[in-house]
Amino acid sequence: MTKIGIYGSEGRMGQAIRDAIGAAGADYAGGVDAGGDPMALAREADVLVDFSVPSALVGNLGAAVAAGKPIVVGTTGLSADDLQNVDDAAQHVAVLQTGNTSLGVTLLSALVKQAAARLGPDWDIEIVEMHHRHKVDAPSGTSLLLGAAAAEGRGVDLATHSDRGRDGLTGARKEGQIGFAALRGGSVAGDHMVILAGNGERIELGHRAESRAIFAQGAVRAALWLAGKPAGRYRMADVLGL
Amino acid sequence: MTKIGIYGSEGRMGQAIRDAIGAAGADYAGGVDAGGDPMALAREADVLVDFSVPSALVGNLGAAVAAGKPIVVGTTGLSADDLQNVDDAAQHVAVLQTGNTSLGVTLLSALVKQAAARLGPDWDIEIVEMHHRHKVDAPSGTSLLLGAAAAEGRGVDLATHSDRGRDGLTGARKEGQIGFAALRGGSVAGDHMVILAGNGERIELGHRAESRAIFAQGAVRAALWLAGKPAGRYRMADVLGL
Amino acid sequence: MTKIGIYGSEGRMGQAIRDAIGAAGADYAGGVDAGGDPMALAREADVLVDFSVPSALVGNLGAAVAAGKPIVVGTTGLSADDLQNVDDAAQHVAVLQTGNTSLGVTLLSALVKQAAARLGPDWDIEIVEMHHRHKVDAPSGTSLLLGAAAAEGRGVDLATHSDRGRDGLTGARKEGQIGFAALRGGSVAGDHMVILAGNGERIELGHRAESRAIFAQGAVRAALWLAGKPAGRYRMADVLGL
Amino acid sequence: MTKIGIYGSEGRMGQAIRDAIGAAGADYAGGVDAGGDPMALAREADVLVDFSVPSALVGNLGAAVAAGKPIVVGTTGLSADDLQNVDDAAQHVAVLQTGNTSLGVTLLSALVKQAAARLGPDWDIEIVEMHHRHKVDAPSGTSLLLGAAAAEGRGVDLATHSDRGRDGLTGARKEGQIGFAALRGGSVAGDHMVILAGNGERIELGHRAESRAIFAQGAVRAALWLAGKPAGRYRMADVLGL
Repeated sequence: MTKIGIYGSEGRMGQAIRDAIGAAGADYAGGVDAGGDPMALAREADVLVDFSVPSALVGNLGAAVAAGKPIVVGTTGLSADDLQNVDDAAQHVAVLQTGNTSLGVTLLSALVKQAAARLGPDWDIEIVEMHHRHKVDAPSGTSLLLGAAAAEGRGVDLATHSDRGRDGLTGARKEGQIGFAALRGGSVAGDHMVILAGNGERIELGHRAESRAIFAQGAVRAALWLAGKPAGRYRMADVLGL
Repeated sequence: MTKIGIYGSEGRMGQAIRDAIGAAGADYAGGVDAGGDPMALAREADVLVDFSVPSALVGNLGAAVAAGKPIVVGTTGLSADDLQNVDDAAQHVAVLQTGNTSLGVTLLSALVKQAAARLGPDWDIEIVEMHHRHKVDAPSGTSLLLGAAAAEGRGVDLATHSDRGRDGLTGARKEGQIGFAALRGGSVAGDHMVILAGNGERIELGHRAESRAIFAQGAVRAALWLAGKPAGRYRMADVLGL
Repeated sequence: MTKIGIYGSEGRMGQAIRDAIGAAGADYAGGVDAGGDPMALAREADVLVDFSVPSALVGNLGAAVAAGKPIVVGTTGLSADDLQNVDDAAQHVAVLQTGNTSLGVTLLSALVKQAAARLGPDWDIEIVEMHHRHKVDAPSGTSLLLGAAAAEGRGVDLATHSDRGRDGLTGARKEGQIGFAALRGGSVAGDHMVILAGNGERIELGHRAESRAIFAQGAVRAALWLAGKPAGRYRMADVLGL
Repeated sequence: MTKIGIYGSEGRMGQAIRDAIGAAGADYAGGVDAGGDPMALAREADVLVDFSVPSALVGNLGAAVAAGKPIVVGTTGLSADDLQNVDDAAQHVAVLQTGNTSLGVTLLSALVKQAAARLGPDWDIEIVEMHHRHKVDAPSGTSLLLGAAAAEGRGVDLATHSDRGRDGLTGARKEGQIGFAALRGGSVAGDHMVILAGNGERIELGHRAESRAIFAQGAVRAALWLAGKPAGRYRMADVLGL
């Protein structure tokens, strides 16, 4: 069985990944947190998963390279320097870096890009999401990721084609804009829907997360897929063969 | 059969109401538009429907009173003076004045008020709607009507408890706020959904309009219900016995 | 603080109720399971909750009556004799017996009944639900509860007005029937939607459960509401003032 | 401007196509119905659309071939012989034959196939649709088309992997089955949703038709795309470049 080691094993995601390792029938090789030794774990594991903090990333990547082990990087808030370190490590080992490890969102994103590419600009694109009452920003990172996929499918720049916070006397909808709306309430883990609205018909492409456990499941699935892969930089879409 | 007369019979709603009269098995007593004689129609009809313009309203109400006929007023954009004229007419004949003649929206509004009243403030209320790409304002009048019903159920003032155009670093959701979001695209006639989100569960109360014909159907249903009623001011909710 | 005692405290619902008691700021008075002494717990608690087994119910009700304590009965699979015992106990103490302790479903049921009563028979009623892949029966008990509420609103008998398992050459829909459809898949805790479909418009009244914890939350809310009430038989709808 | 001729111009679809030709900025070359001369129209038009009856198809195809004009065949209820005639005609001119001319459904079908192919068999597939109360069969032809796309993505035979009319004591869901459910009511033109339900997350891929005009729009779009194409057999998916 594949042995998976976790950098950041005591964080919320780290603990969820430990549960997901068992459920997936893999082995838990151990965990390292602040002050621990990344090298020992890198030698012991077949593949590594990093959900630590940006400041720990460079050491963890170095250990992965030294031990010749693939690594999934799910830590968020990375700087340009961090991403350069990821690229450097990918010269030596397989590295999959992502801001969203959900398989469902990964697939949805590919479908949205394709739909936006195939349907003409007379189909209006809207993205609506709902999250729990504690979320402090809008739209969600996943909404923006889906919007980027739609913009890529359309061949436009999302930054100049976003319509956010629609309210008041807005005038008629501008062709080619991608609209965003955010609902907040209760304990909703995260629902997203992309609507492509044409004349007389609509396509609705949605994703519903029941809990944050899906991100841990996806990280484990990505780790199992990455084990044994040659050096290089990989994406979640590769895990699904997209 | 009940004979229904229309003030504003050549407008878009007037024409739709003529179609709806036939479908409902009622009789069309005739129509009057700008420059026509409201009195002759009032004598001929059993009940009147006004979808004209605010400036014509006072004459139409006067004709209804003089002929002793009930009248449904669906004309929008009424001033305080217009509404006073409505009240005055209701001293003499049955008058049903409304900004929304859809039976479905009327019922939904009552359900939303009840849900908001029964569920505590730990259930967050969000209202999301979608309309065609030509709509120039957000949120829709129907969204605001549903928001007012929710606020009434909660016993709060909508004006001070609305959260519109959510975007950026919003902070956590404020308890008791009623959120509004507007989607625009394609040719959607009008979809509305009110979400009450609690801990671990959500109630979703929605309405979908396939076309604007439902407003004409509702106006005819209201007219048939109003025929023969005593003088007084009525609401759409009365038609459904709410 | 109100002290809540649990009959069946080691079962899945019993454990969930213990968690919910803490979250609601109430006190846990203790639990009794097979072989335990119901009387001691009844003396200690301010209000009792029974999620045990039908064979234990009569003893638990007896203890509640002897100690003069209100009791919420959520145990399912009750026989006519069991229900008679519930009625008898309600002569002496407050008893709330229910097959579904979710506040959201309780409210939705009341809204469905009202909608069915107010909209005429030209509005077709359909009920669709989705549950996880392990569920062995269809439609769900909650669907049938919602169907019963719709039938009651319509003044018809559900048994003779159900349309289930629609497939093949069905012919046109029969007026007045209430349709049921069941979706199964994944780990869905339970989604329900009641659709009332008229000419040109639809009303959709839905409920989404994120997890089964909502049933425990509702049971605790019912218990806190029942504490101090006079003898009599109560329903979940009473908790919401419906 | 491209001149489009219609076989079956007086039928419901024929009339809708005439409206759609104008809206698309194309020219109407004329129509032929029972007893008319298909050859004269074939000479006059740049491209032909057939929404007639199966018995007229062979003559219409013959005229298209003789005049060397492309033809879109949307007539339904075709026999094996009819389809052989379509194949034969495609040796000489461009022929696009399809049972569903909606662009949205065509795209959705491609997305469903891809989703089913990429997600493993631990994602359960369910298809639910709603149509008006007059529809006499269930599930809809479009549901079956979407089910076939899902089955193709999974590499299984739909006939042996369908679960229809779920009702009663069904037992747990069987892995790999594709579930179908049909809702009926009101005047719904046609809504479809394909759900892929995994552990802790769901993907929902849906289509909503506001009216049957979308089928006429899609037929005109297909005709404009087909004009000038070399001989061969084409599908709606080709129009979208799928």
